[in-house]
Amino acid sequence: MTVTAPKGFRAAGVTAGLKASGTPDVALVVNDGPADVAAAVFTTNRCKANPVLWSEQVMANRRARAVVLNSGGANCYTGPRGFQTTHATAERVADALGMGAVDVVVCSTGLIGEQLARDPLLAGVDKAVAALSPGGGPAAAEAIMTTDTRSKQVHVPGTGWSVGGMAKGAGMLAPALATMLVVLTTDAAVDAGTADAALRAATRVTFDRLDSDGCMSTNDTVLLMASGASGITPDADEFAAAVRAACQDLARQLLTDAEGAEHDITVEVVRAATEDDAVEVGRAIARSALFKCAVFGRDPNWGRILAAAGTTTAAFDPATLDVAFNGVWVCRDGQPGEPRDGVDLSGRDVYVVVDLKAGKATATIWTNDLTHGYVHENSAYST
Amino acid sequence: MTVTAPKGFRAAGVTAGLKASGTPDVALVVNDGPADVAAAVFTTNRCKANPVLWSEQVMANRRARAVVLNSGGANCYTGPRGFQTTHATAERVADALGMGAVDVVVCSTGLIGEQLARDPLLAGVDKAVAALSPGGGPAAAEAIMTTDTRSKQVHVPGTGWSVGGMAKGAGMLAPALATMLVVLTTDAAVDAGTADAALRAATRVTFDRLDSDGCMSTNDTVLLMASGASGITPDADEFAAAVRAACQDLARQLLTDAEGAEHDITVEVVRAATEDDAVEVGRAIARSALFKCAVFGRDPNWGRILAAAGTTTAAFDPATLDVAFNGVWVCRDGQPGEPRDGVDLSGRDVYVVVDLKAGKATATIWTNDLTHGYVHENSAYST
Repeated sequence: MTVTAPKGFRAAGVTAGLKASGTPDVALVVNDGPADVAAAVFTTNRCKANPVLWSEQVMANRRARAVVLNSGGANCYTGPRGFQTTHATAERVADALGMGAVDVVVCSTGLIGEQLARDPLLAGVDKAVAALSPGGGPAAAEAIMTTDTRSKQVHVPGTGWSVGGMAKGAGMLAPALATMLVVLTTDAAVDAGTADAALRAATRVTFDRLDSDGCMSTNDTVLLMASGASGITPDADEFAAAVRAACQDLARQLLTDAEGAEHDITVEVVRAATEDDAVEVGRAIARSALFKCAVFGRDPNWGRILAAAGTTTAAFDPATLDVAFNGVWVCRDGQPGEPRDGVDLSGRDVYVVVDLKAGKATATIWTNDLTHGYVHENSAYST
Repeated sequence: MTVTAPKGFRAAGVTAGLKASGTPDVALVVNDGPADVAAAVFTTNRCKANPVLWSEQVMANRRARAVVLNSGGANCYTGPRGFQTTHATAERVADALGMGAVDVVVCSTGLIGEQLARDPLLAGVDKAVAALSPGGGPAAAEAIMTTDTRSKQVHVPGTGWSVGGMAKGAGMLAPALATMLVVLTTDAAVDAGTADAALRAATRVTFDRLDSDGCMSTNDTVLLMASGASGITPDADEFAAAVRAACQDLARQLLTDAEGAEHDITVEVVRAATEDDAVEVGRAIARSALFKCAVFGRDPNWGRILAAAGTTTAAFDPATLDVAFNGVWVCRDGQPGEPRDGVDLSGRDVYVVVDLKAGKATATIWTNDLTHGYVHENSAYST
């Protein structure tokens, strides 16, 4: 159920003292090969954190032999000094493991706009190297937690190979600000093109469609490392499906642990003219503060859904839209439909369907409600 | 200080019983001429309310002789029956005042997705017609309130003519969902082109730059009626300045009365390559839930400002951005600048400056913080 489940990987999670809480804060995942294939997707935010600037360079050759991650500080908007800290972190890992710094992806999460404490971090790297083990996945998953209330791990078995993974975050890839970090591992023998294609296809329909609060993070990274240790090269479609399943599972874990959320909302847009249209409408709804407040208040407020849809350029006729909450079609043809009293929003899962009646495409966006807890978690000084 | 301050207008505000609270809910403003010039700006939401669909038709010839407004129901997403209610309302006003229904603009605000009670509304129209008076402006302003805690009125004097106005709303023109309705009156003798140009220029830099919660309303309407009763035709620039001043004043009143807000935030983006760039960056910041929560928590979290700016296509170099909170440059060149401890966010007004260092254009966006009060007001059932 973790990054060390596939063969060829060791991991560790240790405490370097970066967090005031004193909980583990440095994780290391090493690919012992024989292959060192890797693929990655990063935040599309133009104001990126230093570890993202570094790791984009590392990934230019689509290879990586290790990833070192820290919580307790995002190393974001920290200028050249912050970049040097990232570089030093990669070098420390490389020196200890006999590889080049250019083989080491770096991820950071925590406060932005503050320098990371470099010496404690580097001492933590040494400690993590010493603690590396084939059973170290759970400890690594724990060390990357910030506001997460539980660690997130996954294992998707193939035939003689598998995909493992861990994640942290209360947000999502694009957008998010509660940094999402995901490390996926596999012992399948795949080439860089296959790995990259599988990862991009998977993130496009999983993490990219998580939209917790519409805010795009500065540090988000999804990394896939392939060791080839199983000696098996799966069919590309089969491999892609496993990667997608792993991403889907982790995305769901992120959603259900989102900051302050009381409802997990699935917005399914059906009969759109194009998938892009469906995504645009779903995202507009998922980003409507008014809709999200309504769900918090257990109010099946379909008017706010139509109002959000009306801000998009998607093809549809406002006078023919249908909307269902948990199976009750409260809006038919842009007017009141079945009685909204029939909708029960007391459970955690809320399932919204919007029928555009404009084509055959469908897309699903996942989000959360907007709650007092969200405001509280994000308003405390320096969170 | 109101719509009846300029010569040639009568108004009334009465109670028709549309609101459970029993407070006034029908307003009427009549232009007694001699001119009946009018200009209007409506929500750009594609899913518009019935009164907007009606009033867009009325305004096709850039003339209006009356506007009837109701609170207690938005008549939005109510289908053909709802449109008939709007039509009947305009006809009732027209019959009573000896004009055509096509001379009557209709505005509604309140719950969406529910039919308006037509008979009480029409009886309320009769009552309003009977109550019309040259001193009726304040009563009209009161009758259009929904979640507003106070009525909003304005009077900007010219030389022998003036502009009056009233507004309701806890949101803004584009976007907003807490419907913004604005009626401006003037006794200046202006033609339709002058009125239209002045109104569009004014709304573009006032209501359009209010971004309380990023949600675009279905009912927003800004109407300007010109009676010509002063007999004076002001210089077009002087007239435009007065309309702009009236809009600016009302926009400020809307901002300071936004639902649940504890801070009024001014985001000024300076040294942008273009005004569009400045607006895009300002709006991205104003829509960041994380930034708005930070302000609620009195946290000068400039990292969230950079992260929001990073989602835009505006020209700038992330490594050179400066950000100030209330005069303290907490971020210099994309890194920590002056100590954030020096920022005092205990007052209601928060003034953020973002220096893009990319050109000479500037724009200002106004928004509010995201508070427990906002979540509370927007999560209660059927608000």
